[in-house]
Order: sequence, then structure tokens, then C-alpha cells
Amino acid sequence: MSSDEEQIRAVVERWMQATLAGDAETILDLMTDDVVFCTVGNEPFGKEAFAALSRANDSQMSIEGSNEIVELQVLGDWAFTRNHIDIRMRQGDGAPVRRSGYTLTLFRKEADGRWRLARDANLLTGS
Amino acid sequence: MSSDEEQIRAVVERWMQATLAGDAETILDLMTDDVVFCTVGNEPFGKEAFAALSRANDSQMSIEGSNEIVELQVLGDWAFTRNHIDIRMRQGDGAPVRRSGYTLTLFRKEADGRWRLARDANLLTGS
Repeated sequence: MSSDEEQIRAVVERWMQATLAGDAETILDLMTDDVVFCTVGNEPFGKEAFAALSRANDSQMSIEGSNEIVELQVLGDWAFTRNHIDIRMRQGDGAPVRRSGYTLTLFRKEADGRWRLARDANLLTGS
Repeated sequence: MSSDEEQIRAVVERWMQATLAGDAETILDLMTDDVVFCTVGNEPFGKEAFAALSRANDSQMSIEGSNEIVELQVLGDWAFTRNHIDIRMRQGDGAPVRRSGYTLTLFRKEADGRWRLARDANLLTGS
């Protein structure tokens, strides 16, 4: 059995791989049902809105980039990370859009023993 | 003795009042020494940089606005809040600048029994 820290790192890694692969179902399973996403310039939104956004994204969207954990602390059944993310997105043949910056993310260990993302403040901006 | 939640609400209230009053010393005492502030478009920064920014702000700066706790959960010796902040800043006779948005903030109960702000993701943008 891996440590809580290792399990959380695996969630971050799976989330990033699923994002690059456009695998929304896997991502939805890595978040709690009460998840709240906070992004720049928008009202906070939850799991249903995340799913709707994922469906709206054309399958022609390609994403590449990196997601590095800068800090990770386990606080019992909760944990937080600060990550630095740097991604480039491209819709079909369109010009690539780069977004980079930091996140502050809370994870919660749920009744099934799995860690899932529960709150996320995403400070990424375009450049 | 007030509950942890009441103490954290009091920290948020004192922080806001000190911000409106331009009282940097009080604010610095409400954060941990290892605090990390994450803001849009900047590298994360700590207590010394916060203090330097406060000193650089002209005493002519006036601030008004509100800071509402949208969510608060205590996780043992840590806690998090999500806040909605809406402030207007004015430098001397200059035009007021409005900044509004959400924060995701972590607090830690320190050895002296006091809760202090430890990590803060500030998603405020101008409008």
C-alpha cells in the first residue's frame, strides 16, 4: 500500500495524463462530487459544469504540457498541493494557446479510501 | 473560548479591517512565517515580500470593500475558507480601481493556539 503522499501524486499524474489524452471520464472519477473549481474571471463551478465544459471541447483539441507539484502536505484525511502548470492547447489547426501558472488544490480521502480532488484554485493565465 | 470556526472568522475580519485601515503590522501578525501568497500573473511570494509591498504602498492609498466567507471547513489544526472579495482602491486623488473575485485560503493553528493564514490563492481581477 502506497503512502497518502504517493497516492496523491498518482492522482495528479493520472489527472494530467487524462487531460492530455482528452479522457474526461477518468478526470471526473478523480474529483469529489462536491468539488469546487475557482478560476480567474469566472464564478466557481462544480462537477456537472466541469463535465459540460469537457463535452463542449471539440475532440480536435490537443493539449501538451507539464504539471509539477511544488508543495504537498497531508493533513489527515485532507491534503493540499501547490502545482505549477504549463500547457499549450490547440484546437484543430488553430494557433496554439499557452496557459501557465500555479494552482492551490485540496484533496480529500473518501470513504472508499481513494484520494480525490475537492477544491481547486487555478491561477493560470494566457500568454 | 470561542470555537475554531469563530476564531478563523475573527482572523478574516481583523485582516479585512486592518487592510481597510492600512495597518500592515496587524496583517503581518495574522499570517504564518512560511505563508505563501499566489496571485494572478505573478510568482508566489512570502511574508517578507508582502511586507515590502505594504511599505511601498503610499499612505495615500484608501481601500474600501467587503470580504465574505463563502465556505469554511476546519480540518484539525488546518482549515480552509473560500471567500468572495470586492474592493475599491484609490491612490490619492486617482481614479478608483475595483478588484473582485474569490480566494481559496488555508489557515493553520500554531503552537501559541492562534489561527493564522498560511496559504492563499487570490483570484481577484480588475474590472
